[in-house]
Amino acid sequence: MRIGIYPGSFDPVTLGHLDIIERASRLVDKLYIGVLINGSKKPMFTLEERVELVKRVVKDIKNVQVEAYGGLLVDYAREKHADVLVRGLRAVTDFEYELQIAQTNHKLEPNVDTIFFTTSIEYSYVSSSLVREIASYGGDISQFVPKEIVEEVFKKLEGNRK
Amino acid sequence: MRIGIYPGSFDPVTLGHLDIIERASRLVDKLYIGVLINGSKKPMFTLEERVELVKRVVKDIKNVQVEAYGGLLVDYAREKHADVLVRGLRAVTDFEYELQIAQTNHKLEPNVDTIFFTTSIEYSYVSSSLVREIASYGGDISQFVPKEIVEEVFKKLEGNRK
Amino acid sequence: MRIGIYPGSFDPVTLGHLDIIERASRLVDKLYIGVLINGSKKPMFTLEERVELVKRVVKDIKNVQVEAYGGLLVDYAREKHADVLVRGLRAVTDFEYELQIAQTNHKLEPNVDTIFFTTSIEYSYVSSSLVREIASYGGDISQFVPKEIVEEVFKKLEGNRK
Amino acid sequence: MRIGIYPGSFDPVTLGHLDIIERASRLVDKLYIGVLINGSKKPMFTLEERVELVKRVVKDIKNVQVEAYGGLLVDYAREKHADVLVRGLRAVTDFEYELQIAQTNHKLEPNVDTIFFTTSIEYSYVSSSLVREIASYGGDISQFVPKEIVEEVFKKLEGNRK
Amino acid sequence: MRIGIYPGSFDPVTLGHLDIIERASRLVDKLYIGVLINGSKKPMFTLEERVELVKRVVKDIKNVQVEAYGGLLVDYAREKHADVLVRGLRAVTDFEYELQIAQTNHKLEPNVDTIFFTTSIEYSYVSSSLVREIASYGGDISQFVPKEIVEEVFKKLEGNRK
Amino acid sequence: MRIGIYPGSFDPVTLGHLDIIERASRLVDKLYIGVLINGSKKPMFTLEERVELVKRVVKDIKNVQVEAYGGLLVDYAREKHADVLVRGLRAVTDFEYELQIAQTNHKLEPNVDTIFFTTSIEYSYVSSSLVREIASYGGDISQFVPKEIVEEVFKKLEGNRK
Repeated sequence: MRIGIYPGSFDPVTLGHLDIIERASRLVDKLYIGVLINGSKKPMFTLEERVELVKRVVKDIKNVQVEAYGGLLVDYAREKHADVLVRGLRAVTDFEYELQIAQTNHKLEPNVDTIFFTTSIEYSYVSSSLVREIASYGGDISQFVPKEIVEEVFKKLEGNRK
Repeated sequence: MRIGIYPGSFDPVTLGHLDIIERASRLVDKLYIGVLINGSKKPMFTLEERVELVKRVVKDIKNVQVEAYGGLLVDYAREKHADVLVRGLRAVTDFEYELQIAQTNHKLEPNVDTIFFTTSIEYSYVSSSLVREIASYGGDISQFVPKEIVEEVFKKLEGNRK
Repeated sequence: MRIGIYPGSFDPVTLGHLDIIERASRLVDKLYIGVLINGSKKPMFTLEERVELVKRVVKDIKNVQVEAYGGLLVDYAREKHADVLVRGLRAVTDFEYELQIAQTNHKLEPNVDTIFFTTSIEYSYVSSSLVREIASYGGDISQFVPKEIVEEVFKKLEGNRK
Repeated sequence: MRIGIYPGSFDPVTLGHLDIIERASRLVDKLYIGVLINGSKKPMFTLEERVELVKRVVKDIKNVQVEAYGGLLVDYAREKHADVLVRGLRAVTDFEYELQIAQTNHKLEPNVDTIFFTTSIEYSYVSSSLVREIASYGGDISQFVPKEIVEEVFKKLEGNRK
Repeated sequence: MRIGIYPGSFDPVTLGHLDIIERASRLVDKLYIGVLINGSKKPMFTLEERVELVKRVVKDIKNVQVEAYGGLLVDYAREKHADVLVRGLRAVTDFEYELQIAQTNHKLEPNVDTIFFTTSIEYSYVSSSLVREIASYGGDISQFVPKEIVEEVFKKLEGNRK
Repeated sequence: MRIGIYPGSFDPVTLGHLDIIERASRLVDKLYIGVLINGSKKPMFTLEERVELVKRVVKDIKNVQVEAYGGLLVDYAREKHADVLVRGLRAVTDFEYELQIAQTNHKLEPNVDTIFFTTSIEYSYVSSSLVREIASYGGDISQFVPKEIVEEVFKKLEGNRK
């Protein structure tokens, strides 16, 4: 059985993330989505909310399991007996950073490999931080996040303003 | 009539910015310089000062108008009936980021296009943040900012120290 | 009157080229499409054919004129009294090369500026050489070139095989 | 059953290639190594030799099959019922090119995905063309290619000189 | 006599830094290691500790002198009558940033040049911030920092937790 | 005594090359300029001419010696007891390629290091191939090559046309 981990902050999950999840889930028997406990400094959504929202958008993909994780990614991978870490690549600056992380993880745990998918072209410019910024000015984010997420983002922003 | 917008923080305006403004102003009939209300986290100059300093250095370019703007750039562009957003490109990391922003803006507002000028070679290494850092150590910034700006930067730094 | 030049080999013209032509034609009063006499070493199409095919796909854009040109681009620009050279940017390696050319052209003729459009995301991976390669193996090129061009490419390939 | 294809010219196969083959073979049930019929213009080794040399270095990896292939990679993938194309990534210029190919292949055949491995750090600078160049000057290539290949390269070079 | 300066935060000094120091020390008669007073916002180690730890790992290299420095690097270089600034290059994003700094320093002080070493391949993914992150989760950092530093990092982390 | 080698095709030597030579000659006691025997496929100038032209432009720099060399650069470096190879860096694609070469040379000969200078900003877009192309169309190359070279290039071009 091949086991993969797709780690990230998912603050919030985007159509780009969903695209990678669908494609990676076809390549492994079990895909863990590891929602980073300390993803960004001031997350828009709490850890519980981020896990919950990812669960909602992947509920129809059978071999995917969403979890929170903290600590070193390689420790989490060992715990799950994962064979591969899955990452999406969008751009050059992504690539350099991802390469550094992959080499470091390989040094820390040679039994876990990293594979990369390139983000599908229609989502290649989407990022969670852009979504947060656009939403904060009332912009239309329906092209960037799954439809279940759109209203959650605006609900959260309204809540924050109260 | 072709209308362009050149957005930025301008904290402070540099010779590199001025170079782009002069070149872009020749390509459109009207060029708005949009000074970003929330440009950087702790700006050296207030919004009013940044607008005022840009005004001072572009006062001889007839078709340029300097304004503050907030919110989404595409909303500001719609309000001004702009045809193009103008951006300067200096380096690869710039390029990737700018590409992402341009694609996002295009998705949000297909009627506004983005054009890029490459910074003239003599200003290709100049940035507002470098200017602020050099000035904070008393370095010579006269090669990096218009001469009207040099004394304003040092006046501001002295004021901050009091 | 603002005059632009969009130079290239157009061997053959792609949907990516057409996208840049449409967008650039809105920004200038007159856009010359300069088809490079010595574009690639062994062109698929002759110079006359390349000019003819570009003409066919731009026939509904009023302010565009298609011409062959040789020699230095800046000399051609001077001859046409052009204000700007137009280039499309797809990727990082493109960018570095284009930057070098733009700086050189600026040194040779300071009165002509270069502006860049970023290729629309759906055409960001398209290039004439990829089209030629895919077509040579009988692949489907209808997503990459204007429909008037598809049959011309295959007609040409058949002719070459006789 | 998951099926992968690792395509390339393998002129000659390097330690970097072997590293990717070993890692990819763990992720799929069957890995085809597709040796490109028209890899480089003037290959050092003939197609038959390149296939034979790859076979020799992978003979202990059970689920790997080495074959020659021509035409479009996506056609070969369809023929083999492959789920994924496997590619190694070394550097930024690699990345941009690979991204373009991956997007094009995805357009031509949406059912075949591409995954990337980053070359292990100790082989990150190795390429077949460097091996050929170093060998042609009598340099030591034992750090760059499997030991079975070293003597074949020099035998070939001697043969060419006769 | 040729004098060089290798500036940095060294929070903490890594095997990558040590590699550059050893190689640079062979090229100049005297190499100053300038430990930046305001390196990162919240350093793991105090300035005194960072200076002390670098001293410890370079104690056998005769022509190296470790010092704290603040202010503009070019001012420090003038004070030390330095001929060259030494920098290590790891990746593309490094390169663009370093290029900008080198050009700026050259403008501020034309008599001081900058030379670059590329980090040896086995340390090409190592950075002080990665070391701090891995250590904070109890990961094994012995492949990334000199052995004298490993225990200091963990001692410091324990101290911080008390 | 520190010995350096600056290798290249120098077809022809440019102001960018001269800038690197002047700066590198200050850092070593002896600088060999190695003119590559098989630099480009169809050089404009013969090997003897390239050596002669470089000699002419460096005649006032005392510690520089111009020579032809063939074979592996590391073999030439060993023969000259060189400590460092000197390279100029202009752009990202340069950088990746140079990094690959430097790592390979280091593997082949660990006693020879490579140092990089970044091309001075005013020459950052200059290359020998651009010079050849501009000159072939009769363009003004006086901003790109030393003045002794300008007439030689045009003399050569006229000779070729006869």
